[in-house]
Amino acid sequence: MTLTTTAATTWRSTGVADLPEETLELIDKWWRAANYLSVGQIYLLDNPLLREPLHRDHVKPRLLGHWGTTPGLTFLYAHLNRAIKEREQSTVYITGPGHGGPGLVAAAYLDGTYSEVYSDITKDAEGVRRLFKQFSFPGGIPSHVAPETPGSIHEGGELGYALSHAYGAAFDNPDLLIAAVVGDGEAETGPLATSWHSNKFVNPAKDGVVLPILHLNGYKIANPTVLARIPQDELQALMEGYGHKPHFFEVADGSTESHVDIHRRFAAVLDEVLDEIAEIKARAAAGDLSRPAWPMIVFRTPKGWTGPETIDGKKTTGSWRAHQVPLASARDTDEHLHDLQAWLQSYRPEELFDADGSVLPEIAALAPAGRLRMSDNPHANGGLLLRDLRLPDFRDFAVDVPTPGGSMSEAPRELGKFFTEIIRRNPDNFRIFGPDETASNRLQAVYEVTDKQWNAEFFGPDVDEHMARAGRVVEMLSEHQVQGWLEGYLLTGRHGMMSSYEAFIHIVNSMFNQHAKWLKVTNDIPWRRPIASLNYLLSSHVWRQDHNGFSHQDPGFIDHVVNKKAEIVRVYLPADANTLLSTYDHCLRSRQLVNVVVSGKQPAPNWLTMEQAVEHCTRGLGIWEWAGTEKDGEEPDVVLAAAGDVPTLEILAAADILRQEAPQLKVRVINVVDLMKLQDPKEHPHGLSDKEFDGLFTTDKPIIFAYHGYPWLIHRLTYRRNGHDNIHARGYKEEGTTTTPFDMVMLNDMDRYHLVIDVIDRVPGMSQRYAGLRQRMQDARILARAYTREHGDDLPEVRDWVWPDARELAANAEVTATLSTGGDNE
Amino acid sequence: MTLTTTAATTWRSTGVADLPEETLELIDKWWRAANYLSVGQIYLLDNPLLREPLHRDHVKPRLLGHWGTTPGLTFLYAHLNRAIKEREQSTVYITGPGHGGPGLVAAAYLDGTYSEVYSDITKDAEGVRRLFKQFSFPGGIPSHVAPETPGSIHEGGELGYALSHAYGAAFDNPDLLIAAVVGDGEAETGPLATSWHSNKFVNPAKDGVVLPILHLNGYKIANPTVLARIPQDELQALMEGYGHKPHFFEVADGSTESHVDIHRRFAAVLDEVLDEIAEIKARAAAGDLSRPAWPMIVFRTPKGWTGPETIDGKKTTGSWRAHQVPLASARDTDEHLHDLQAWLQSYRPEELFDADGSVLPEIAALAPAGRLRMSDNPHANGGLLLRDLRLPDFRDFAVDVPTPGGSMSEAPRELGKFFTEIIRRNPDNFRIFGPDETASNRLQAVYEVTDKQWNAEFFGPDVDEHMARAGRVVEMLSEHQVQGWLEGYLLTGRHGMMSSYEAFIHIVNSMFNQHAKWLKVTNDIPWRRPIASLNYLLSSHVWRQDHNGFSHQDPGFIDHVVNKKAEIVRVYLPADANTLLSTYDHCLRSRQLVNVVVSGKQPAPNWLTMEQAVEHCTRGLGIWEWAGTEKDGEEPDVVLAAAGDVPTLEILAAADILRQEAPQLKVRVINVVDLMKLQDPKEHPHGLSDKEFDGLFTTDKPIIFAYHGYPWLIHRLTYRRNGHDNIHARGYKEEGTTTTPFDMVMLNDMDRYHLVIDVIDRVPGMSQRYAGLRQRMQDARILARAYTREHGDDLPEVRDWVWPDARELAANAEVTATLSTGGDNE
Repeated sequence: MTLTTTAATTWRSTGVADLPEETLELIDKWWRAANYLSVGQIYLLDNPLLREPLHRDHVKPRLLGHWGTTPGLTFLYAHLNRAIKEREQSTVYITGPGHGGPGLVAAAYLDGTYSEVYSDITKDAEGVRRLFKQFSFPGGIPSHVAPETPGSIHEGGELGYALSHAYGAAFDNPDLLIAAVVGDGEAETGPLATSWHSNKFVNPAKDGVVLPILHLNGYKIANPTVLARIPQDELQALMEGYGHKPHFFEVADGSTESHVDIHRRFAAVLDEVLDEIAEIKARAAAGDLSRPAWPMIVFRTPKGWTGPETIDGKKTTGSWRAHQVPLASARDTDEHLHDLQAWLQSYRPEELFDADGSVLPEIAALAPAGRLRMSDNPHANGGLLLRDLRLPDFRDFAVDVPTPGGSMSEAPRELGKFFTEIIRRNPDNFRIFGPDETASNRLQAVYEVTDKQWNAEFFGPDVDEHMARAGRVVEMLSEHQVQGWLEGYLLTGRHGMMSSYEAFIHIVNSMFNQHAKWLKVTNDIPWRRPIASLNYLLSSHVWRQDHNGFSHQDPGFIDHVVNKKAEIVRVYLPADANTLLSTYDHCLRSRQLVNVVVSGKQPAPNWLTMEQAVEHCTRGLGIWEWAGTEKDGEEPDVVLAAAGDVPTLEILAAADILRQEAPQLKVRVINVVDLMKLQDPKEHPHGLSDKEFDGLFTTDKPIIFAYHGYPWLIHRLTYRRNGHDNIHARGYKEEGTTTTPFDMVMLNDMDRYHLVIDVIDRVPGMSQRYAGLRQRMQDARILARAYTREHGDDLPEVRDWVWPDARELAANAEVTATLSTGGDNE
Repeated sequence: MTLTTTAATTWRSTGVADLPEETLELIDKWWRAANYLSVGQIYLLDNPLLREPLHRDHVKPRLLGHWGTTPGLTFLYAHLNRAIKEREQSTVYITGPGHGGPGLVAAAYLDGTYSEVYSDITKDAEGVRRLFKQFSFPGGIPSHVAPETPGSIHEGGELGYALSHAYGAAFDNPDLLIAAVVGDGEAETGPLATSWHSNKFVNPAKDGVVLPILHLNGYKIANPTVLARIPQDELQALMEGYGHKPHFFEVADGSTESHVDIHRRFAAVLDEVLDEIAEIKARAAAGDLSRPAWPMIVFRTPKGWTGPETIDGKKTTGSWRAHQVPLASARDTDEHLHDLQAWLQSYRPEELFDADGSVLPEIAALAPAGRLRMSDNPHANGGLLLRDLRLPDFRDFAVDVPTPGGSMSEAPRELGKFFTEIIRRNPDNFRIFGPDETASNRLQAVYEVTDKQWNAEFFGPDVDEHMARAGRVVEMLSEHQVQGWLEGYLLTGRHGMMSSYEAFIHIVNSMFNQHAKWLKVTNDIPWRRPIASLNYLLSSHVWRQDHNGFSHQDPGFIDHVVNKKAEIVRVYLPADANTLLSTYDHCLRSRQLVNVVVSGKQPAPNWLTMEQAVEHCTRGLGIWEWAGTEKDGEEPDVVLAAAGDVPTLEILAAADILRQEAPQLKVRVINVVDLMKLQDPKEHPHGLSDKEFDGLFTTDKPIIFAYHGYPWLIHRLTYRRNGHDNIHARGYKEEGTTTTPFDMVMLNDMDRYHLVIDVIDRVPGMSQRYAGLRQRMQDARILARAYTREHGDDLPEVRDWVWPDARELAANAEVTATLSTGGDNE
């Protein structure tokens, strides 16, 4: 099997073909066949080729789906087929109006791909019947473009990401054309409105070409669309303002122009556009990498084109009434049934299908062959093309940890060094995406080997650091854009990651939902091959407000993620640099997951050597024996558990106090890096067995659990555990304001002093004996609070605290680089 | 106290003033003072007026904040002050680059408002010292524009909503100017990119005017901005494409033009723009309501303008290096300390403040007086202007429920009728916002009395139903836009609601976060008056996929909301039409909340008469005695609880089966409409006392709980309840695909048959005795599944099931209008 679709001569220029009438007729037949098959999917349960008069029982009892956008999608597909075949141009088709699912299924069926991947849907009348029945039917396929649709990398449904997915697919695919149909409804969404600017981030030589086609059919569910209701000169200005050269094509509502004439006009527009692209590509190949005005097409056609003009006396085609199922009563009224039959017959199926119900070969032959079929383009089944990353040994990037807490790092900075070597070894297969935060999140080491890809104006080196027309980092201030690019890059078989401030990642909650759903569904589709995981690094997390106001305060993305199917999601909370490195190496090797990794970026103590970190990450959680005071073979009196870097710091500081103040107390310290380990193994594949869990957390001892996010998640994850009722979780409770690091943990009662109080209050017998210590802890909090309010910084004894073993090293300036340094959050 | 700021002659045209040198000097002094006060806030702990040489101890230990955008914001504020005063034009200032917080605090201080609302921050040297110290300091104010900032309705932080907030404020405020500064970083976000199109939704006579000012200072945290790096003709085309008439103003980086000349040039631009607006307003007043090309300003100035040119040998002003705190080592190095002193002195504070440290009166007098001060505009403290809605009696809209299940309704359709009368009574104080789904979500009755407001092209009545240049419904296909408009409308003291498909509401998760934070913070700011609640109607919920693919499947918005402070959020799950009406009446009367109301839109049985519904809503949850089989004074054997319409239907159908098949079993049926009732009263003000909870749910009987969303939320909410371990929650588990309604509940094991099995498995002693029933239930599920796969519809006995008391009425066509009708989801 050869997967390449790259012809010897890519980006051919053919000139505007003077297409013979015959070819135009064939295009029209292909289009009619696709439309017939689309309408059939929406309405028909039986009698697929209308070989007997249409009867009510032939109509589905529940009519579901969207007709309105479909004929436009099939029209474009037909014309692209013709051009692809002539130019041997590898092309992916992105269906922005994804609810036009029937059209894309029809196209894949006409291509032959559908029957290849679903052998049950044969190329005959029975296959057509099955094709129709399964659509939006129990046990069948969704009504939208979906993972089940061959050729798709773009889930229909939530709108807005057609162009960002398209550009994600284009990066590092220099020979690939992505025809991206943008619905005019979708064009109103925010993410789509900004994604036009993606053209400032592609390299005309090293990346593929996105051809945006604005499908201006004028209506949404119940309203006209904005872009269809502004004067053409405004629309032209808008597209030019976005950096495009628009080509306008229009079929007026009610036009009586012949279809052959219409096809001739559009074929000319398409050839012209593809030739312009070929010219740009040729210029780029000759060294001109400046940003061209890439062509795009404004495709203005009637909504529901070729459907019933009026229904029940109301204008339907060319109106929002054509959006979904125009003849809603086809099973219930003779009139609608009759109209449906007339509509279906208007495509003249008898000219399209042979006696067996196969599409006539000359019509099918309009499509290109093999991998050049858009429904079979391997880029749209990215796992086919996926190559493993060539990963260096992450251990080579270990930070030195002479003793726990004996050195400090900004953990993501060390991760950036690892990425640097990954970039060196994978110059066209790995990208870092970010909303202007790659350096802020401390990954800037990568700029030693690469640049930020940028293709707008350059102002010179004193302001444009690390910017070039090609580079592995792509940044724009839009989490939507960045996530969409990354998704498109991964779905077409490459590797990548994105970093974001933790609070702002909620911006893409719904995009995460859609991608997670995609992954989940593809797991059950045998012909879809696994793709690389979507890796997040959430830094500038909620425990450090620094430059920020009240807005950067929500650790709930983890909660959002955990609502998804366990087989798809992973959440990691590495407590230091070596643990982060080991974690990320694991993430980059994984497939079909969303990995959420949360790590602070401020200087913080390192706790584990690389060897220890690897062992810790392999287990996912474990006892940090060096930190506890339990004795061999005896159960501890209390378990101090932490998940997250700041919680770990406070838990250890509390353990330090307890070891000094309550030396007889047997304290166990547990650190959790893989949050899913806490869950019941029935709920998550990573879950510890109950036996293991009990062995670690005991079944009857108090567990003081300091957690990075909202504390109730710990309860939810451990809900079925034996020791669950003993867990006392501390975490984020939405109390923060701009403040110092220690003030922040105090506001949430997760500070070392309060954790000691928690221990005293929870361990039987302690409250009496340690009443004095309890009081001192309370006093210490008051003092610490008062100090911040006077000095604007944390008490030195808090700020500069180090783990006992490291105190000797504390004179060392590196260690006392303190936690007080301001960050550079937005 | 008079709150009106409307002058007798609004929208004055003054012509371009030939400003005397003296005025230009005053503008400059005001600007210098604001910049001085901004820099002081970022850096100084003491020595506020530099009356002694600057010493390291005068510098804050943690330097936090953002300088880069600040001088542009203060420049614009100064000029607006001059123009407002001349024109007596009520103006709200929206700070898109909200991280320029120091600039807006400085402006409010110069206005005098700051000292009025914070009496501690006096107008003297000590006041200035306190103003400086509190900024981004423990116990102080956030670094961003925030609720604490007088004059603001726009939280800085998460970017993208400046224009949608501005337009929300403009609706129904015909005399209000909203000067909306859009950062060029923010301009890259999706929500901002589409929000320019808001100008197609305002009425030039009945609404206020938004003046967008694109603050093109060229850089983000570490990158140039896209819009600053495209040719000016492209930028011009983009703004024209968005429907604006751009006015360009530029101060080049490194320009040596005198400040007075710069001020003269900008004053002329501003006068020209304001005169253009006055002209448009005059034309509108004369009856021309067509969409004009509203002016906007492209304000291109150097980032960090007036700050240090270079620091440590690197270009700073006019680069991304000026974004945050340019002299980061001012406390640590003599060089930075010296540079800081020079920078502060460059504003010549000795010319700005008198001996006491008060700003010189002639400088302060640049600002307008009283409510014309932008920091004191009452629209920016909307609660001041809030009028109660004139609400009709919702009981008048009751649906007739002769017996439980004895009639059917599409619940939101009834709500729409209630809204109709609300609109009649509140023609300028209530709006409905939606992403093209108002009719789809069944609120279309409102079109009897109003239209969709639209000011793009009209194509005629056969396609443009219910569209007009003025109307109470505002729809655009962008949840961001709709939410932003609603927020702006509410924050300026009006009432409204938005409807959305449940799954798509995640698009605005982060916007909800920011608004919830705003409400929470304003609760603690005495001078901020309460505003109307933000009311959601989530329909097209996850239990009905219908026209949709895999994408419409996430009930997790409730989980997201519940993470917020209890005092701010409410979640309601009314089970039928009367309950929805009663719920929504309550929501519309509430203040300072986010009310999430979830209701299906498909025909569904009504259970409660209005009288019962009111009582039920008042309690928030309760026993439905008519549905249960418990006997007076005896505890039930099992509790069947439901929250949500589909869960209620299935629970009742299960209760029906049990009453027939296990007549001795004492079943209690509980319905929950106010989800927060389940919580511990310590966690939520609505929470039931333990005694009440135990009385309802028992402490030892099995509770089979059918819930609309992810089932673990029920566990989380009831975590501390005595009967918690007895709860067996069923709910959404992410298993759906396009299917029939009953198939959907079966896929999630929440169907009537499975609920009966749950009862058999959980009630002691039942599993043996009812083994036969259990088997029949399993068989029934298999049969039901198979039926859907053959017929594409649910088994008639399932689909047409009605509650026993209503069976007699079941012959009535209205009742059997079935659940099988397809919806019209996008």
